[in-house]
Amino acid sequence: MMQTYWKKGMGQRRAVFEAYFRDMPFKNGYAVFAGLQRVIEYIEQLRFSDSDIEYLKTTNQFDDDFLEYLRTFKFEGSINSAIEGELVFNNEPIIQVDAPLMVGQLIETALLNIINYQTLIATKAARIKSVVGNDPVLEFGSRRAQEMDAAIWGTRAAYIGGFDATSNVRAGKMFNIPISGTHAHALVQAYMNDYDAFKAYAETHKDCVFLVDTFDTLKSGVPNAIRVAKEMGDQINFQGVRIDSGDMAYISKRVREMLDEAGFNDAKIFASNDLDEKTILNLKMQHAKIDVWGIGTKLITAFDQPALGAVYKLVSFENEHGEMIDTIKISSNASKVSTPGKKQVWRITDTEDGKSEGDYVALFDEKPQLQESIYMFSPDYTYINKTINNFTARAILQPIYEDGKLIYDLPSLSDIRKGSKERLSLLWDEYKRNLNPQIYPIDLSQKCFDNKMKIIKNVRDYVSKLNF
Amino acid sequence: MMQTYWKKGMGQRRAVFEAYFRDMPFKNGYAVFAGLQRVIEYIEQLRFSDSDIEYLKTTNQFDDDFLEYLRTFKFEGSINSAIEGELVFNNEPIIQVDAPLMVGQLIETALLNIINYQTLIATKAARIKSVVGNDPVLEFGSRRAQEMDAAIWGTRAAYIGGFDATSNVRAGKMFNIPISGTHAHALVQAYMNDYDAFKAYAETHKDCVFLVDTFDTLKSGVPNAIRVAKEMGDQINFQGVRIDSGDMAYISKRVREMLDEAGFNDAKIFASNDLDEKTILNLKMQHAKIDVWGIGTKLITAFDQPALGAVYKLVSFENEHGEMIDTIKISSNASKVSTPGKKQVWRITDTEDGKSEGDYVALFDEKPQLQESIYMFSPDYTYINKTINNFTARAILQPIYEDGKLIYDLPSLSDIRKGSKERLSLLWDEYKRNLNPQIYPIDLSQKCFDNKMKIIKNVRDYVSKLNF
Repeated sequence: MMQTYWKKGMGQRRAVFEAYFRDMPFKNGYAVFAGLQRVIEYIEQLRFSDSDIEYLKTTNQFDDDFLEYLRTFKFEGSINSAIEGELVFNNEPIIQVDAPLMVGQLIETALLNIINYQTLIATKAARIKSVVGNDPVLEFGSRRAQEMDAAIWGTRAAYIGGFDATSNVRAGKMFNIPISGTHAHALVQAYMNDYDAFKAYAETHKDCVFLVDTFDTLKSGVPNAIRVAKEMGDQINFQGVRIDSGDMAYISKRVREMLDEAGFNDAKIFASNDLDEKTILNLKMQHAKIDVWGIGTKLITAFDQPALGAVYKLVSFENEHGEMIDTIKISSNASKVSTPGKKQVWRITDTEDGKSEGDYVALFDEKPQLQESIYMFSPDYTYINKTINNFTARAILQPIYEDGKLIYDLPSLSDIRKGSKERLSLLWDEYKRNLNPQIYPIDLSQKCFDNKMKIIKNVRDYVSKLNF
Repeated sequence: MMQTYWKKGMGQRRAVFEAYFRDMPFKNGYAVFAGLQRVIEYIEQLRFSDSDIEYLKTTNQFDDDFLEYLRTFKFEGSINSAIEGELVFNNEPIIQVDAPLMVGQLIETALLNIINYQTLIATKAARIKSVVGNDPVLEFGSRRAQEMDAAIWGTRAAYIGGFDATSNVRAGKMFNIPISGTHAHALVQAYMNDYDAFKAYAETHKDCVFLVDTFDTLKSGVPNAIRVAKEMGDQINFQGVRIDSGDMAYISKRVREMLDEAGFNDAKIFASNDLDEKTILNLKMQHAKIDVWGIGTKLITAFDQPALGAVYKLVSFENEHGEMIDTIKISSNASKVSTPGKKQVWRITDTEDGKSEGDYVALFDEKPQLQESIYMFSPDYTYINKTINNFTARAILQPIYEDGKLIYDLPSLSDIRKGSKERLSLLWDEYKRNLNPQIYPIDLSQKCFDNKMKIIKNVRDYVSKLNF
């Protein structure tokens, strides 16, 4: 496509692309945006190397002059994006590329790859965080992540979504995420018995969590953990025990009793065993005595919905006279019809209760923040509407690149995480329910809606006038 | 754990770890092993850099002398593994690390991460390939892959599993996989009509596949594709059209008629739209006229089961007298009890019909290939058994590393792919059915079974003698 654009002299014309997803992941009431740091890293290093050019030459699909152009390629244009930790919703732009057509086209796949996965995981993490409450929750999924990048960047996304620490030391190093882990069964197997293994671990570590289910949790693991903790006394910081199998509700209650009886009321019970928000909710309901949650496979692969499905559509394009013309993709599936025009997303907050009333998707030059009142309506069910008088409007898409230059300072990861938590507190609880949440309104401005209807009609006219 | 091993002087003792998965992915009858190239790349580059050591120091969890040791760390030991493209099954070792305890422990997470994902995708690809028959099938999933490594290595795994090409140009370059793609909707949107877009593409490409569903597939996309193909004549190689939305069965039949009527009987219909083996099977059953299949999300994320779940267990460990002692992990869940001892997997083939009779998991020093007959029985249901007289036994675990040295020559990717196809032909069709396949026998040798029973008894004795 790039070659076509380039040869036809269209490559440098201005084009606006927007990425959005059509359905909320996990049928959740909100999504947590993540991936921007990685997008920036990608764009900053985006070049065609000599070996890339050589390879492309071998495919016999590209002309030499086009390949010579690629040698000089670097990102030009502007990007507006939701910032990391922002709450985002379906059918609204979450990242917007306003750049020469060729450039905007080239970066599509990488951008989608990054934001699809990281937003998915940050959202899954937030769902899990919502059921653990104030209990610490640890990322334990590296061995099940879909290859190495997912282990690293998924961990970062999980931290944004509210996780507290990770067992992935490399992610800890790269992003300054707290690391936390315990020993594995192999340690106990190597010693052939729990006592010797825990003792050895205690003699070589200050902070100790003993994994108690290698042979028999209640008969050997826990009693031996207690024995070692007593023997070592102040020499160690006995944090608790981890259970990784068996009936977590029953076992955790028995373990709690045993620890309490031994005087270790502060020792924590760590649990890990294919947990997700649904199993945690059930365990909590049964008053399982679990204090710290280790979450692996179900988080890092977003097991129940492993893809977000964001798409990237051309919404406006410069014609040969230098005018921007809004563009559309039609589909027989109504929900797949794109919304034309360069847009901004405004989060409308009621000034009285401070809660979000919905998102208002407007054309980019509209200024709803200056209006006295705002008329919001569902673009699918237009008879559902409301007028808000006392509101603030906050722009969700923030400038990241301007004319090829990075103008955004990435906040620290802990600030991103904090910001996400603060934004969540502005949402009504009804939108935050994990199952069947209330649907958060994503409304189009009248101008944006009329523009879409007009362009749909243009396309219908175009098709009906075809003469085949 | 490594620090404990190191400080306790156990780190250099010999340990055997084996990776295996407990359940067949997608309830498939076989899995296609992949990931070995990446494992080798990982091991070859495995070092602790100065900045790694500095970071570990900041955690205050490691002693200086241990960190100094890490500076000198490199892989020692031996690895036996299934080779890429090999068929593997649940509850048999697929990779085996025989190395100093510390070393075997350190590489666990990366090994599992790699083989879990790549084996999963190669298997998913084989399932999809099994329903498309001889139709070409293309990998189109990069924008939905779980971060960038998955896009790249997942593509390679898909190729091993039988896919024919990919739209990921970087994977094409890295692994010499054929690349194939079409233009996207944006091209048509940029031109505002199908005809101009197809014409522009045709004027800048020899091989042309036109995407026909931007505005209206049957009224605009296909007629305009035909018009351009006629106008361009021999100047292009009109390969066909791609449809990406709508009812694929109905539309593809109409499109076929239109192409045939226009004399383009050789033009192919490409389809892509959240396809997987189930939708393809249904489309085939309805005689959809689809010739080439583009598979994205459902393949690259293994959507219906996004994790393989392989684990890595210590099966044998050298005691302080230099003897190897087999080790076990017990669980209240019977299927989670590991099988002790260093093992080899033998694929038993009937010499008369050339078909696989099952896999025979034996202790490593057994030599079933020299036996006159072989007694095979299910370790779970021991009353299911058989004796085979005329057979060949092929070892599945092949030497990859010996004493820290890579001794395995990676075959070319196309040879790996070919080998996988050949091995599949040795399986009875009943094991290859996508839904409810016959269960392929994974049997333990009598020696291996007896060893496991003995060790389970030892652990029971140990637990029962504890005095708490």
